Amino acid sequence: MPMNMTQKLIKSHLVSGEMIPGEEIGLKIDQTLTQDATGTMVMLELEAMGLERAKTEASAQYVDHNLIQVDNKNPDDHLFLQSATRRFGIYFSKPGNGVSHPVHMQRLAKPGKTLLGSDSHTCANGCMGMLAMGAGGIDVAMAIAGQPFYVKMPKVWGVKLTGKLPDWVSAKDVILEMLRRHGVKGGVGKVIEYYGPGVQTLSAMDRHVIANMGAELGATGTVFPSDEEIKRFLIEQGRENDWSPLEVDEGATYDIDEELNLSEVVPLIAKPSSPGNVVPVSEISGTPIYQSYIGSSANPGYRDFAIAAEIVKGKHIADGISFDINPTSRQMLTDLVKESHIASLLQAGARLHQAGCNGCIGMGQAPATGRNSLRTTPRNFPGRSGTREDSVFLCSPETAAASALTGVITDPRTIGIPYPKVQEPANPTIDEKLLDEPLPYEKAKEVKLHKGPNIASIPSMDELPDSLELPILLKMGDNISTDEILAGGARVLPYRSNLPEISKFTFEIIDRTYYTRAKETGNHAIIGGFNYGQGSSREHAALAPRYLGLRVAIVKDFARIHWQNLVNFGVLPLTFVNEADYDNLEQGDVLELKDIKSKIQNGNEITITVKGKNNEIKVKHLLSSRQIEIMLSGGLINWVKANHVGQNA
Amino acid sequence: MPMNMTQKLIKSHLVSGEMIPGEEIGLKIDQTLTQDATGTMVMLELEAMGLERAKTEASAQYVDHNLIQVDNKNPDDHLFLQSATRRFGIYFSKPGNGVSHPVHMQRLAKPGKTLLGSDSHTCANGCMGMLAMGAGGIDVAMAIAGQPFYVKMPKVWGVKLTGKLPDWVSAKDVILEMLRRHGVKGGVGKVIEYYGPGVQTLSAMDRHVIANMGAELGATGTVFPSDEEIKRFLIEQGRENDWSPLEVDEGATYDIDEELNLSEVVPLIAKPSSPGNVVPVSEISGTPIYQSYIGSSANPGYRDFAIAAEIVKGKHIADGISFDINPTSRQMLTDLVKESHIASLLQAGARLHQAGCNGCIGMGQAPATGRNSLRTTPRNFPGRSGTREDSVFLCSPETAAASALTGVITDPRTIGIPYPKVQEPANPTIDEKLLDEPLPYEKAKEVKLHKGPNIASIPSMDELPDSLELPILLKMGDNISTDEILAGGARVLPYRSNLPEISKFTFEIIDRTYYTRAKETGNHAIIGGFNYGQGSSREHAALAPRYLGLRVAIVKDFARIHWQNLVNFGVLPLTFVNEADYDNLEQGDVLELKDIKSKIQNGNEITITVKGKNNEIKVKHLLSSRQIEIMLSGGLINWVKANHVGQNA
Repeated sequence: MPMNMTQKLIKSHLVSGEMIPGEEIGLKIDQTLTQDATGTMVMLELEAMGLERAKTEASAQYVDHNLIQVDNKNPDDHLFLQSATRRFGIYFSKPGNGVSHPVHMQRLAKPGKTLLGSDSHTCANGCMGMLAMGAGGIDVAMAIAGQPFYVKMPKVWGVKLTGKLPDWVSAKDVILEMLRRHGVKGGVGKVIEYYGPGVQTLSAMDRHVIANMGAELGATGTVFPSDEEIKRFLIEQGRENDWSPLEVDEGATYDIDEELNLSEVVPLIAKPSSPGNVVPVSEISGTPIYQSYIGSSANPGYRDFAIAAEIVKGKHIADGISFDINPTSRQMLTDLVKESHIASLLQAGARLHQAGCNGCIGMGQAPATGRNSLRTTPRNFPGRSGTREDSVFLCSPETAAASALTGVITDPRTIGIPYPKVQEPANPTIDEKLLDEPLPYEKAKEVKLHKGPNIASIPSMDELPDSLELPILLKMGDNISTDEILAGGARVLPYRSNLPEISKFTFEIIDRTYYTRAKETGNHAIIGGFNYGQGSSREHAALAPRYLGLRVAIVKDFARIHWQNLVNFGVLPLTFVNEADYDNLEQGDVLELKDIKSKIQNGNEITITVKGKNNEIKVKHLLSSRQIEIMLSGGLINWVKANHVGQNA
Repeated sequence: MPMNMTQKLIKSHLVSGEMIPGEEIGLKIDQTLTQDATGTMVMLELEAMGLERAKTEASAQYVDHNLIQVDNKNPDDHLFLQSATRRFGIYFSKPGNGVSHPVHMQRLAKPGKTLLGSDSHTCANGCMGMLAMGAGGIDVAMAIAGQPFYVKMPKVWGVKLTGKLPDWVSAKDVILEMLRRHGVKGGVGKVIEYYGPGVQTLSAMDRHVIANMGAELGATGTVFPSDEEIKRFLIEQGRENDWSPLEVDEGATYDIDEELNLSEVVPLIAKPSSPGNVVPVSEISGTPIYQSYIGSSANPGYRDFAIAAEIVKGKHIADGISFDINPTSRQMLTDLVKESHIASLLQAGARLHQAGCNGCIGMGQAPATGRNSLRTTPRNFPGRSGTREDSVFLCSPETAAASALTGVITDPRTIGIPYPKVQEPANPTIDEKLLDEPLPYEKAKEVKLHKGPNIASIPSMDELPDSLELPILLKMGDNISTDEILAGGARVLPYRSNLPEISKFTFEIIDRTYYTRAKETGNHAIIGGFNYGQGSSREHAALAPRYLGLRVAIVKDFARIHWQNLVNFGVLPLTFVNEADYDNLEQGDVLELKDIKSKIQNGNEITITVKGKNNEIKVKHLLSSRQIEIMLSGGLINWVKANHVGQNA
């Protein structure tokens, strides 16, 4: 039976389940990617699991997020990550080497492989004919330990590309066109697969741009073919042997069909404050700007910087514009320097920043109050730039550079110069040092984890007891977000590698006394309403309350990812059989659960007694048999230890 | 009578006083320099004074300190500074253009002129045959308004340079040799004047290195001749017409004489945690390092980066070393890029940061806990890097680059390569846009100050009343520092342009209730012991309590700069005639002062009644007649307004 590329990738990695959209499937993971903001906890999880050595074909840890070093915390995390990668047999990319996704593409990506990463833009490497997906930290830790990744079988959405991009229009405009058509939820539960004659007109890095922002469509992944262009790219990186072809079979079909004629795409821009808020640049041209920003994994290529340099060459940007250049890898920066593009940018008035994620994740380059910022980054959610009520627009490097010259949002087709032709460097640099190789096992096993004063191991946690008396410490309403469970921001984030410290912020926004009461009480329960745990996927929002003794969360319903995180960290997520029972429970009530183990194994309804109230409530769980096993162990870390996963070399 | 260069500079700018060491002299100021960390308050002071237009020959505002933009505050400050410079007729250097001192040297410095700057390393421009001095913000504001700068006539310390630096030894080693000989207080009350045949072996930028760290010797200033090398430098900058000669007269004498034979200088290093803690590099070679850091106004020259690039060219730095390159100006970075030095540094594994002060003032690049950091910066005071109990060493670019290669502190003479010869670029870049020219007055007068939500004008303050009843809100012990009066650090510094907000932190370390009590009470007094107001010169430590109603501070004695700041902001600084009276005063006592004006004008003793206690105490003031006038006005800002200083175009 003819298959599309996504089906081929899934079939060749299928460990469990059936390839029926919506069914849970288990996939063998060949490669993993972690970055520093999520990776410290992943490494602490590997330590807690007792991992002896990574089981993947290649796992890589990048330091690209927390590059601002105003005290010891970030540099201590960098050293910890370096020591952990040495201990566990993982590649390490040090600060200044660049953004994970393009560096991974340059040094490790292989057509036909699966890649799981603790970063939502991991999907970018789908440009290399891979199935590349973002996931929570502990899912990646499990993959490093050799476990499958469980996900619902996606629908496959075939997008046939025809035609060729006109002058002044580039890959960013293609993904903005997809967002214009389908919005930020258009890709949920789907893998987007690009095929057709238009694909060959796009370079490997152009495809990276399009695959990267599949995340903004909400897609599970994006898949491009592995063709002659991918071969050329790998040859350029000195990795010809890593190439293998991937293409759609003649006669294969898709769950959803679409066509996109590249010739018809125009310069597009996403207005504040959603990547889905897309209009033609011409529609809002003339709007004054404060900042023009080039960089991030959404426009990471040599050509993305070189085209901007060619546009501003010999000119000077408009007065008062902050023209921020954020290189995406050391290797690419070296070539941009050698080919005079950096000199052109500097002489035009650019601010050149170190290679990394930088302003894309709010680590620098925040715009001034009330001023418009034009960025080639993937996201413009409110406040993500670091400035509250910011006004961030997403566009191509062509639009950003043209607008830097004029000081207002400008359709690059109107600036009156011929479209510059960017040549790739004749002798591109290959920086082998972008990744330190994993140590051989004999050396690795001797390495001690290096922990600065702000890095704390994850304490061991007990199995699920068979009976529990659980005081209700909090009763909350509907739509409680993970930001309310455990805030982000500059005050809290520096403690992401320190569970005891970060747990002090748990539920702080809702009830400042929770932390103290939980520490006094130990095992306890919480009650919530609808959509409990919505928002960010941060795993600390499950891990921190679990650390403080949370054993059971009873709510009207859960947001999907937080529900998964609770299971992973051994908190029993239950929903009311009768939602009216929500009103019968109060903070301070004590819940009695007996024979828990047999009850959750034998059906999904459980009866709970409210102590001293002569009151019983019925609740249910939605755990799979795999998840029940995890829950009984007290969470994934315990389950891995009990099953001796990854505990041999 | 033959004169040395310092005497010539002073004599040609003398407005009042006699040139007798220790006597107060008034000097006409030709140029001013402000940076962003101090400049926001200077601009707010100019606004409060009602300045119409800068009266200097050239005043320049640089943005080089607060370049980390994690929220709106710093970028809002940048826009405010830009608007203020446009309003007041001041040059503006935008973020990314570089560090004030080298940029000022490149674009504005003129032999024979005086320069006053609100940055302690302003003395660096003494390399250009100028009298260049650091001062508090309001002193610089007064200079911008056309007022003289008052300072004690310094002693002049002649240092005769002979010989020529050996290979692998550079200007940084010369100033470290001075620090080795004399320590961090060796220059107090003195101007250091370098002369003799060795001077001509040093480039203009080499002299900048030596003049810059005159601040670490505690000197009032450093003066070099304006000779053929300075002429060459100005020609290179396209400013030949700005040159004029300055040399010491035949037969001139010095208050102090010294000789330094350049041929005998060896690679030196200042150990943690004082610039005066100097030893030969060879004495501590082999010590492991975490970081090698090139940059700052203490090694700002093209050659300082180029020599490092030549040393690491074609090699790779040791594993795990953070090799941080911090360019000092956009113009110099452009040349370093064009001449391939940046490519050499990147390929050796460097992290390239934006042009600015960066880690030198703790804005990034903080080292990891317990790790050694080697820096070409001027200061290694404890914690200045951002990391508590840090371990920072100061050295030359040669030593820093050699050590980056080996991973341990390394005498650069031992690395086994010939000393690289650095050529200045054949066609050096001149970036005219490093400074925006002042607007013509007709345009400037229409400019409105642009204030983000975190920028607040300085409220107007009243004159000194003739009688006051002042409750004592705080009674403190000895050695209270300005850090205790108003803390620095990341929590407080973002409010430096917002007096009402920053005042909330006043005395917070000593008594959290002070702010609330002061807001309720209004006019009040405080009592202190010996050495009150020691430490940093921050003017906010006087301005914030004054804003909260502090009118009188009675202590055993004052630290000099804080005493001056109290006068400048209209707080009457008094000392006990009988120190035993300190014990007779308590928090809550109410002091009655009557006929204050006539009393401080007619003698320096005042009698104060303690209300309801039948108790009198005698106190005294040390104000000059000029300062009495300021005090009666309620501070310098009021004095300037009353005297209509600078209120015409």
